[in-house]
Amino acid sequence: MIETIYKPLCAKRRKYLIIFLLIFLSVIVTNSAFAQAEAHPSVPAAWWLAPIGSLFALAFALIFYKSVMKQDEGNETMREIAQAVREGAMAYLKQQYKVVGIVFAVLCAIFLFMAYVLNAQNKVIPFAFLTGGFFSGLCGFLGMKTATNASARTTSAAMQGLNEGLRIAFRAGAVMGLVVVGFALLDIAVWFIILYDVFPKVLPNFFEGNPLPQITVIMLSFGMGASTQALFARVGGGIYTKAADVGADLVGKLEAGIPEDDPRNPAVIADNVGDNVGDVAGMGADLYESYAGSILATAALGVAAVGAKYADLPLEELMTLQLKYLSAPMILAGVGVLLSILGIYMVRTKEGATMKQLMGSLNLGINMSAVLIAVVAIPVLMYLDLPNKWQIWGAIVTGLAAGLIIGKVTEIFTSQDYKPTQGIAEQSQTGPATVIIEGIAVGMESTAIPVITIAVAVAVSFYLPGGAKDTLMGLYGVGIAAVGMLATLGITLATDAYGPIADNAGGNAEMAKLDPEVRQRTDQLDSLGNTTAATGKGFAIGSAALTALALMAAYLEEIRFGLIHLANKATLEIPGVAEPVETLKVSISQFMIYYNVTLMNPQVLIGLFIGSGMAFFFCALTMKAVGRAAGAMVQEVRRQFREKPGIMEYKEKPDYARCVAISTTGAQREMIAPSLIAIIVPVVVGLILNVAGVLGLLAGGLATGFVLAIMMANAGGAWDNAKKYVEQGAYGGKGSDAHHATIVGDTVGDPFKDTSGPSLNILIKLMTMVSIVFAGLIAKYGDVIGGLLGMQ
Amino acid sequence: MIETIYKPLCAKRRKYLIIFLLIFLSVIVTNSAFAQAEAHPSVPAAWWLAPIGSLFALAFALIFYKSVMKQDEGNETMREIAQAVREGAMAYLKQQYKVVGIVFAVLCAIFLFMAYVLNAQNKVIPFAFLTGGFFSGLCGFLGMKTATNASARTTSAAMQGLNEGLRIAFRAGAVMGLVVVGFALLDIAVWFIILYDVFPKVLPNFFEGNPLPQITVIMLSFGMGASTQALFARVGGGIYTKAADVGADLVGKLEAGIPEDDPRNPAVIADNVGDNVGDVAGMGADLYESYAGSILATAALGVAAVGAKYADLPLEELMTLQLKYLSAPMILAGVGVLLSILGIYMVRTKEGATMKQLMGSLNLGINMSAVLIAVVAIPVLMYLDLPNKWQIWGAIVTGLAAGLIIGKVTEIFTSQDYKPTQGIAEQSQTGPATVIIEGIAVGMESTAIPVITIAVAVAVSFYLPGGAKDTLMGLYGVGIAAVGMLATLGITLATDAYGPIADNAGGNAEMAKLDPEVRQRTDQLDSLGNTTAATGKGFAIGSAALTALALMAAYLEEIRFGLIHLANKATLEIPGVAEPVETLKVSISQFMIYYNVTLMNPQVLIGLFIGSGMAFFFCALTMKAVGRAAGAMVQEVRRQFREKPGIMEYKEKPDYARCVAISTTGAQREMIAPSLIAIIVPVVVGLILNVAGVLGLLAGGLATGFVLAIMMANAGGAWDNAKKYVEQGAYGGKGSDAHHATIVGDTVGDPFKDTSGPSLNILIKLMTMVSIVFAGLIAKYGDVIGGLLGMQ
Repeated sequence: MIETIYKPLCAKRRKYLIIFLLIFLSVIVTNSAFAQAEAHPSVPAAWWLAPIGSLFALAFALIFYKSVMKQDEGNETMREIAQAVREGAMAYLKQQYKVVGIVFAVLCAIFLFMAYVLNAQNKVIPFAFLTGGFFSGLCGFLGMKTATNASARTTSAAMQGLNEGLRIAFRAGAVMGLVVVGFALLDIAVWFIILYDVFPKVLPNFFEGNPLPQITVIMLSFGMGASTQALFARVGGGIYTKAADVGADLVGKLEAGIPEDDPRNPAVIADNVGDNVGDVAGMGADLYESYAGSILATAALGVAAVGAKYADLPLEELMTLQLKYLSAPMILAGVGVLLSILGIYMVRTKEGATMKQLMGSLNLGINMSAVLIAVVAIPVLMYLDLPNKWQIWGAIVTGLAAGLIIGKVTEIFTSQDYKPTQGIAEQSQTGPATVIIEGIAVGMESTAIPVITIAVAVAVSFYLPGGAKDTLMGLYGVGIAAVGMLATLGITLATDAYGPIADNAGGNAEMAKLDPEVRQRTDQLDSLGNTTAATGKGFAIGSAALTALALMAAYLEEIRFGLIHLANKATLEIPGVAEPVETLKVSISQFMIYYNVTLMNPQVLIGLFIGSGMAFFFCALTMKAVGRAAGAMVQEVRRQFREKPGIMEYKEKPDYARCVAISTTGAQREMIAPSLIAIIVPVVVGLILNVAGVLGLLAGGLATGFVLAIMMANAGGAWDNAKKYVEQGAYGGKGSDAHHATIVGDTVGDPFKDTSGPSLNILIKLMTMVSIVFAGLIAKYGDVIGGLLGMQ
Repeated sequence: MIETIYKPLCAKRRKYLIIFLLIFLSVIVTNSAFAQAEAHPSVPAAWWLAPIGSLFALAFALIFYKSVMKQDEGNETMREIAQAVREGAMAYLKQQYKVVGIVFAVLCAIFLFMAYVLNAQNKVIPFAFLTGGFFSGLCGFLGMKTATNASARTTSAAMQGLNEGLRIAFRAGAVMGLVVVGFALLDIAVWFIILYDVFPKVLPNFFEGNPLPQITVIMLSFGMGASTQALFARVGGGIYTKAADVGADLVGKLEAGIPEDDPRNPAVIADNVGDNVGDVAGMGADLYESYAGSILATAALGVAAVGAKYADLPLEELMTLQLKYLSAPMILAGVGVLLSILGIYMVRTKEGATMKQLMGSLNLGINMSAVLIAVVAIPVLMYLDLPNKWQIWGAIVTGLAAGLIIGKVTEIFTSQDYKPTQGIAEQSQTGPATVIIEGIAVGMESTAIPVITIAVAVAVSFYLPGGAKDTLMGLYGVGIAAVGMLATLGITLATDAYGPIADNAGGNAEMAKLDPEVRQRTDQLDSLGNTTAATGKGFAIGSAALTALALMAAYLEEIRFGLIHLANKATLEIPGVAEPVETLKVSISQFMIYYNVTLMNPQVLIGLFIGSGMAFFFCALTMKAVGRAAGAMVQEVRRQFREKPGIMEYKEKPDYARCVAISTTGAQREMIAPSLIAIIVPVVVGLILNVAGVLGLLAGGLATGFVLAIMMANAGGAWDNAKKYVEQGAYGGKGSDAHHATIVGDTVGDPFKDTSGPSLNILIKLMTMVSIVFAGLIAKYGDVIGGLLGMQ
């Protein structure tokens, strides 16, 4: 008997259909209202698929949330535990938002100063910065709320059966996936309407000439809010989760000899909270940033590419064409959301399915979404009728394919069904040292195919639409590839966020001392989650790389904007070109010559070195942060065991809250240093080494950070599963020396895969975002210090 | 009572003085003979300091060798052990030279084919390639011969006293240092004489027009021979030494519980052989390559820079000026050799000196050599009377300072006297996992200052002589900085090569069951060697980075040469420039535009990604190679313990030779894959992605490889010393759990610091060298495949 895992629509289909019909109609009405009132060309009607997709996503998130909440939360103990995790998670979020609030206030003040005093930044950016951050934070809050509500419910559902558990956990994960894409698209759509339709009416002189390049370039810098939020969510969450995990494991498992998730371990709640703040909120904020960033960068590049290629068209026609290229990534994202929802509904499985079948059904959902997006992109592009629609389609398919390949490679290198992980397990016979060596080697080896994949993806998506000459159109292609890869985010993020929920469900079962059969089911769910978490990390870093590339290219548009509107340089003297060129018409190649962004310019080379070094230094900071925070946790757990000897005999209750508080304050304190460095370095490099140095820094950080992140994530995942492989009986099984050796590997892998590795995604994108936001400053003052030092 | 450690000259001073006077006279006579016969401007007389320095170095190497050999080799057992190590080392070398011979034959055939059939390479290169390789190999042979003869002699000297032991070991190390600089300078000087003086007489039409650009560019590619030799010496040696070390430790120390260097361990001789093949021959070949490469690249850049800047001078005057810039790095190297010898003589110490005093006296020798070079460079530059002599002097001082700073940072991060290493030791209280995490974090953290140092060094040495506009002169400055850093190589390499000799001496003392006092002395010597080895590694990678940068810049001259002489492109059409530019006069900036070597060209970006990935993938290959080779060793040692139970009671003799053979064949087999990749990738990238892709690849490999190499070397060094720190009593001392945890760290660190990390130096330089040698091919056919794929 075949059952659908998710069929919430079946019951109330009609009600929701009516809601959406209403939304859709209101949208059409608004559209036509704007279309009549405005003086400039209207956006292609299909653009409205973006806000529509956004609203659908949010509506389905609500549906899934409600359906999760309908599930019983289990017995008293289960509810109590869930409540403790929930409180811990919310306490952490509250604390994080406090810190983030301060940072936002400071940055906003800086932006206001730059915009209104120095006149070195657009005047809208400070406000847009706040909305980007707000929505990202809101996603984190909603995702966490759902996840922490879902864990005990997953356990309780798992008491009925494996599939029931999977249903609740995956549905809760889908909430995270859908709010992320929903709010990101909403933010983008609303701001575009405001800037394109409302602004010209309210402030008729705000934009001079063609407003589109200015609008897209302003919108691009909205991403900074998302980036800042992502930094704190990913880095803080990463430190929190591993401080708690390592602290709990070191004292609990190794010293006291109690099993994982044992309620006697004072750090057990903190550990469970950590899964949520790290893997749900952190991952969500990371991908929110990639998603928004890739769409915004691509839109800006599209407008610029058309502006350069069809410079001779009359303004009206030019803008109409620009609006098509601008819309394409947004429409694609909107369509992607709808197809992701469809994909979520395609995840079906037989009763009593094996793990492999479950995995297969998840993969089916993801792969089918990807294939459908590739197919549906054809009519979308034909409708838009872009001059190079088939080449653009090729770029979309390239992005989708690259995402799937990187995910598959990650699976091969981290799953215990394949040789690499089994090889690490084999090394456990000669002790922990060889496990570590082999794991690092496997991680390093695993970078080869993703590197080649990204290289080929960049080449194909660049040269197809751009050819050898049109750099801007080529870079637009790279951006579209990133958007294509991220178009499935609604479902891929659902499978990611599912992992920590299943993990927590296992913790809940263990702590509530449920039937071993239940724990066994949640273990199966957890194991599935480990694989999706690993592939999700591959997907996150792959998309971060393409997004960062698109952002890097868009950075130059931001510089152009700064030169024209802030530095008042209407023309530039390009070496080798006889007459000064209008800054608006300077090509990317001419920019490269003007700023000497070549590999023989020491500014670029120094930037490259610093960028590569940044990736390693940032990792060092985050790893040491975990070490210090975990050390504090170890001291606390030991203290509790010492001062409350009754804990071990279940006679005393450990003080869970204190451990939660230690992780929370530790994570918040420790994330300051890496965060500040990631924000300050690009600005300092820009002021000293100008645009050439910044691009060198970004390229170096991107290339090294990408490879390092993959290495760390895959080594960590492989160690984790090598341990599981031994626990299933290989080389002596649980409790053997081989097992202890793999536990060492797993512990080393924890900060690799859950703190430092994923934080690199943020570093890569954040440095680019910071450069974008401070581009006006660099365009205005970037040659001052360098000039004084004789470098210009 | 103050004694000089080295005073071999005192006794026979007169005899040697006469020899050198004769050499000097013969040189002057030859010089004037050439000067009279030749038609073109003669080299500055001070140029002869290069061959003179070379001959002095070789003569002093002979003196030191003889003085080492005079020391008694100790008792029968000591001699036997030394003989076994010697035989093992020579057997390994023989085997390595066989493999290298095959590779040389294949490469030589390819070069001959390229030169004489495809006409895509200069016709001298195949032969020059062979001499570069031959001399590098000869250095390895002589260094190894000295080192393996010195170990038992060091032990025997240590029976008399600590200082006597130090004297022998350091003197033997000096042999390696001096033969490396001696033969490298000799090869360069002789080839220059042949090409500049002999060729024009024998083949009057070989060079058209100004021969200097062609000569320097041909000579540059000689380095390929040294590179190939270095690859096999460093990678093969690195695999050998750690396979033996890890194999010996895992079974001997951990399983059988016998101490290090115990004669019952069948792998103990292989372990001792490994120290020699890895740290003496491997390190020597690595630095031979840097030394020769930096001098040759700088000479080529000098000729090109002068040619561009003073293009309007009459040929005679132009060549006279070019010869000055060409001579400068060679003279500097020659002077450096002489001052290094002086520095070696300045290493004095009091009887009964503490370790710190010994270290201080070694540092004094190195630092004084550096200071003297900076001082003596002033009259040399004034004599040459370069137009920008003070700026060039600034670059030299920058290079010297950068070398010292990187060395000092390495010491701080790896010595047990400082916090980082102590912090790792502290983590041993919570087990091996936290030791590993902290060690990796320390390694990553330690990259920051070296990165900034290299960045500042590049900036200063570029902008001082080059300013903002003259790229070639700036790059010449970077090359001169590299030459400055390496000018002290004679003495720095002596302190490096000293390490493994002291290590072997300790092994000899242990195996020969000498008085514990002797073992204690050799342990002290060994400990000093560990620190010098770590700082030596920092120096090696720092100089490799600067050398690679200079080589990268010189690569473009090689391309120019290929375009003119092989692809017959006398003029190039530069985008933005109205008329075609004579290829001989194309500036570096114009090359950057012609090949679009900018950061927005996907060829460059793809190259960057692949370069970064290469560094990690190469590490993975070498680490896995160590794992496999070590695994074979573990099996063999276990087999011997099992089949010969008498070993443990000293009743049976282990079969040392078999372990030596296993390491040898293992190392040779395992180094094929990484070597092939390092050679093939740059050629393939060049053929598909042209010059832009190659430069991206080199820059990515350089930036990532540099940081990764420092991280691995320093993490490894810090783990090693953290173990020693615990062994000295911290956290429970020897045999405690903390000690076991640090042993895990040390074992992981072994391939980090002795195989993969140092191999990255080679990768960085070799990829550049391969690009240089195949530049003719790329200049001719680099746009064919890219053109077919629509990328040109």
